[in-house]
Amino acid sequence: ERDKYENNDVAGVVTGLAWTSVGGDILFIESILSKGKGNLSITGNLGKVMKESATIAMEYIKANASQLGINPDVFDKYNVHIHVPEGATPKDGPSAGITMLTSLVSLFTQKKVKKSLAMTGEITLRGKVLPVGGIKEKILAAKRARIKEILLCADNKKDVEEIKPDYLKGLTFHYVNDMSQVLDLALTNEKVKNAKTL
Amino acid sequence: ERDKYENNDVAGVVTGLAWTSVGGDILFIESILSKGKGNLSITGNLGKVMKESATIAMEYIKANASQLGINPDVFDKYNVHIHVPEGATPKDGPSAGITMLTSLVSLFTQKKVKKSLAMTGEITLRGKVLPVGGIKEKILAAKRARIKEILLCADNKKDVEEIKPDYLKGLTFHYVNDMSQVLDLALTNEKVKNAKTL
Amino acid sequence: ERDKYENNDVAGVVTGLAWTSVGGDILFIESILSKGKGNLSITGNLGKVMKESATIAMEYIKANASQLGINPDVFDKYNVHIHVPEGATPKDGPSAGITMLTSLVSLFTQKKVKKSLAMTGEITLRGKVLPVGGIKEKILAAKRARIKEILLCADNKKDVEEIKPDYLKGLTFHYVNDMSQVLDLALTNEKVKNAKTL
Amino acid sequence: ERDKYENNDVAGVVTGLAWTSVGGDILFIESILSKGKGNLSITGNLGKVMKESATIAMEYIKANASQLGINPDVFDKYNVHIHVPEGATPKDGPSAGITMLTSLVSLFTQKKVKKSLAMTGEITLRGKVLPVGGIKEKILAAKRARIKEILLCADNKKDVEEIKPDYLKGLTFHYVNDMSQVLDLALTNEKVKNAKTL
Amino acid sequence: ERDKYENNDVAGVVTGLAWTSVGGDILFIESILSKGKGNLSITGNLGKVMKESATIAMEYIKANASQLGINPDVFDKYNVHIHVPEGATPKDGPSAGITMLTSLVSLFTQKKVKKSLAMTGEITLRGKVLPVGGIKEKILAAKRARIKEILLCADNKKDVEEIKPDYLKGLTFHYVNDMSQVLDLALTNEKVKNAKTL
Amino acid sequence: ERDKYENNDVAGVVTGLAWTSVGGDILFIESILSKGKGNLSITGNLGKVMKESATIAMEYIKANASQLGINPDVFDKYNVHIHVPEGATPKDGPSAGITMLTSLVSLFTQKKVKKSLAMTGEITLRGKVLPVGGIKEKILAAKRARIKEILLCADNKKDVEEIKPDYLKGLTFHYVNDMSQVLDLALTNEKVKNAKTL
Ligand SMILES: [Ca+2]
Ligand SMILES: [Ca+2]
Ligand SMILES: [Ca+2]
Ligand SMILES: [Ca+2]
Ligand SMILES: [Ca+2]
Ligand SMILES: [Ca+2]
Ligand SMILES: [Ca+2]
Ligand SMILES: [Ca+2]
Ligand SMILES: [Ca+2]
Ligand SMILES: [Ca+2]
Ligand SMILES: [Ca+2]
Ligand SMILES: [Ca+2]
Repeated sequence: ERDKYENNDVAGVVTGLAWTSVGGDILFIESILSKGKGNLSITGNLGKVMKESATIAMEYIKANASQLGINPDVFDKYNVHIHVPEGATPKDGPSAGITMLTSLVSLFTQKKVKKSLAMTGEITLRGKVLPVGGIKEKILAAKRARIKEILLCADNKKDVEEIKPDYLKGLTFHYVNDMSQVLDLALTNEKVKNAKTL
Repeated sequence: ERDKYENNDVAGVVTGLAWTSVGGDILFIESILSKGKGNLSITGNLGKVMKESATIAMEYIKANASQLGINPDVFDKYNVHIHVPEGATPKDGPSAGITMLTSLVSLFTQKKVKKSLAMTGEITLRGKVLPVGGIKEKILAAKRARIKEILLCADNKKDVEEIKPDYLKGLTFHYVNDMSQVLDLALTNEKVKNAKTL
Repeated sequence: ERDKYENNDVAGVVTGLAWTSVGGDILFIESILSKGKGNLSITGNLGKVMKESATIAMEYIKANASQLGINPDVFDKYNVHIHVPEGATPKDGPSAGITMLTSLVSLFTQKKVKKSLAMTGEITLRGKVLPVGGIKEKILAAKRARIKEILLCADNKKDVEEIKPDYLKGLTFHYVNDMSQVLDLALTNEKVKNAKTL
Repeated sequence: ERDKYENNDVAGVVTGLAWTSVGGDILFIESILSKGKGNLSITGNLGKVMKESATIAMEYIKANASQLGINPDVFDKYNVHIHVPEGATPKDGPSAGITMLTSLVSLFTQKKVKKSLAMTGEITLRGKVLPVGGIKEKILAAKRARIKEILLCADNKKDVEEIKPDYLKGLTFHYVNDMSQVLDLALTNEKVKNAKTL
Repeated sequence: ERDKYENNDVAGVVTGLAWTSVGGDILFIESILSKGKGNLSITGNLGKVMKESATIAMEYIKANASQLGINPDVFDKYNVHIHVPEGATPKDGPSAGITMLTSLVSLFTQKKVKKSLAMTGEITLRGKVLPVGGIKEKILAAKRARIKEILLCADNKKDVEEIKPDYLKGLTFHYVNDMSQVLDLALTNEKVKNAKTL
Repeated sequence: ERDKYENNDVAGVVTGLAWTSVGGDILFIESILSKGKGNLSITGNLGKVMKESATIAMEYIKANASQLGINPDVFDKYNVHIHVPEGATPKDGPSAGITMLTSLVSLFTQKKVKKSLAMTGEITLRGKVLPVGGIKEKILAAKRARIKEILLCADNKKDVEEIKPDYLKGLTFHYVNDMSQVLDLALTNEKVKNAKTL
């Protein structure tokens, strides 16, 4: 079985919940920095809407850098590359938005992501998190992958409440309205090992 | 129910009325600034004509900066990102024009948008507002979303007058001919909290 | 009824005659200047050939700047945006050429366009105006829109002569061979109010 | 009747012979210079192969500037725009190559093109002219347009010899193998009136 | 028979295992450096996902340059070109990822690749190798091509164990989880003859 | 009959063997230099794979400039244009690779190409020549065009041996494995007349 939660040792790697042509699944959002001039590149066989999520996350972070504790000079001195394995599977939709946001803030702050956590939700420029579809399938996939905590939009609570309680055993749910709540819940205050000095 | 009017605390967020494949709906135009070189990026699963509305609004504002009380240096020092949630819904057409114009002027002046207001109308470079379609469906959607005031092109008055008066209870209509009237009606003179100094 | 001739108070706004999927119609060519580096952007749901007309008009003006009384430095210091409302209607073909030419020369000279005038005709780089199709439908549309004078290629005279004289009452026709005749007839020597100093 | 030979007063305007969806026809290749940085733009509803002809002509001229008596500095200081009216007709194929070459050399040298001459032929980088198709239809169109002299590839002589001699009355044919012969035959040593100083 | 393992004399040439429209096959990933400004070009009739693999490999190397013993200045001073013969065969999918990674690290370090080795596996930004499909067909192709050692993702071990042992005679398998293991196994510590000084 | 071998007076012109929709044929690869900044442009109605061959040839030459006796400064100071007449015929496939390589090396060294020689073969970045298809049809076309010597990949020898010996009379074959052998056989040590000083 290939899709299991992995450790949180590396900055910029966050676990998302997706609904692809093969049903519910977990996916990883990975991002890295290299010396450069501020370019953003995106790979992973992504459709237009999912690529837009990466742009929205990046622009949101640039516009709110000081509140997020990020030195804005970093944006001009590094290139960012976001990848979503597995390349053979086409992926689309806005639901990876909060996962991408968390990945990029972890990258720019070099903070560890919370352990055994997965998330799904659309992001907006006004800082609000929007609900997404496929909640039941995504949660079952999360369980199979040994996820312990799940972060969702508050408006998705009703979707969780429709699921047979037995299926939810061992899972803790966090419901959020705002992107700042996502970051509070998902990022620890601990730096990753060998954190880069940006 | 996910589509409700939201507060007006953030600059650059304006409520529009749209007619998508699922009928009348409200939508939010969101825009933000980040340090940059004057690039305009646009997301939200938009078609060609709706993207053109963003370009027209931006160019109109640049050409009329002094009348609008905007320091033109701002255009070279910041990037603008416009997003229209929800990413999963394809959107197109010229009717978000006045909403995008209002969003960008709010962004560049950091002025609060009027409360509980929604709008729909096409913009032109000569400053005139043009009528749009789907008025009945848009107005019913506005009511469901607890909008109180609606801003329309004067040429759309006849479409409103064809709607059963009962449906219009609790709604105030503003009819405009020119883009300057849109901005007079839609923007307050109050700055948003934590207004950016541009 | 939405398509009526409008006043000529603004530089860069010229009335054209078009033949779209809904028949003969008038349309407005609008153009504006903003501080920039000489970029040309074009909106209005235009097809490839109509966009080419804008490029041809612009290049013709640049190549003949001194004869047209335009300081060529202007081309490097401003961006030009050309828009053709209404965005919901796809438009194509070369017949807006002389309208675009007149719009841009009005813009760069800040000269008023002649009142109640509409036009249709293809432009060339050698300065000659070419005839276009749909003359009858265009003329009837012009009349409905309260146009008083119509500017056409001399080779379109035969198309006008085939129309029942009754339909032409109240219309004056100007036939031209060259683009310089278009500008002589269409532009006044008066500057628009609040003319920009370029 | 709209397609007639026109005078040769303007540099950069050359008469070609084309075979479009409506049969044999003459066409004009027009080119102009404006102050710039060496960009080449092409309009006229052209297909990929015909656009390539413009590129080939331009690159050939740049590579052979000194033999052609052209100061190479000109290529960096001006933009070139090539247009082929009439915009409503799609055009493609390599047969306008020698016409484009002649147009550009006339433009860069400001030399008058020979009177009442039309031409058709493909160009190569090695300086050789290649034969093209549709010779009979093109020649009949040339006659209708009052062309007096026709310039063709020597390999097209056999196609002319198959045409009934009566049809060829009043036409003089020039057969060439090389692009230098095209320019010798098509360009006069006289500058156009109001020649630009480049 | 054209597809045989070749020697390892040249830096940047690595043998991969592919599954194309004609079945299992070996392929070569070739990469070279030329003086430049850091551009990456990719040829070989590759689909979108396979091109993305090249981007991911390149970005991974840039982000981890110091651990890989590569002077990051190299990335700005050279262009990299990656080619995958044979151009007539369309190729796609993520399975050439580790082969591209090895090719580029060999190129930037000028280290010899291990002899008679082939590999297949997807790469990620977090440094993990992912399993790929078509293992049986790829292994048989490797044997036909006289490959001696095969490098695979540990998660592909089960696919190897399903193959009749007779078919595997003469082949040694290396199973890896991480990209660093790929590089340890695939690259020797010996420089190629005539190694470039970067 | 239009397709005959031509003389070898001009640098950068090399005869290839192609297999297009009309059967076996010879083709010419032409390349020229003009003052510039190192751009590569390609024309001739070429498909993606044939354009890639041009890129591969160019990158190979840049990476091996010193072995080829080419001053690398040349790459930054000139633009290269490669054209493959005849523009009306779509062409694709990797088999022009060695012809393009020879054309570009002739161009950069201004060396004469061997007389009456034609060639076909795919190139790689590792310097190896790969076999191609359509050998019989290509050879018959070469004979019709009065070619005397043919340069092929050694792996294509078997294809030649299947052809009736009578058809091969008057033809000399050169079989190669490496791109350096191509250049040794195809280029003379004599400069072309009026060789450019690069
Ligand atoms: Ca999966
Ligand atoms: Ca997700
Ligand atoms: Ca909605
Ligand atoms: Ca709207
Ligand atoms: Ca209309
Ligand atoms: Ca028109
Ligand atoms: Ca015609
Ligand atoms: Ca022609
Ligand atoms: Ca193969
Ligand atoms: Ca592979
Ligand atoms: Ca041929
Ligand atoms: Ca060939």
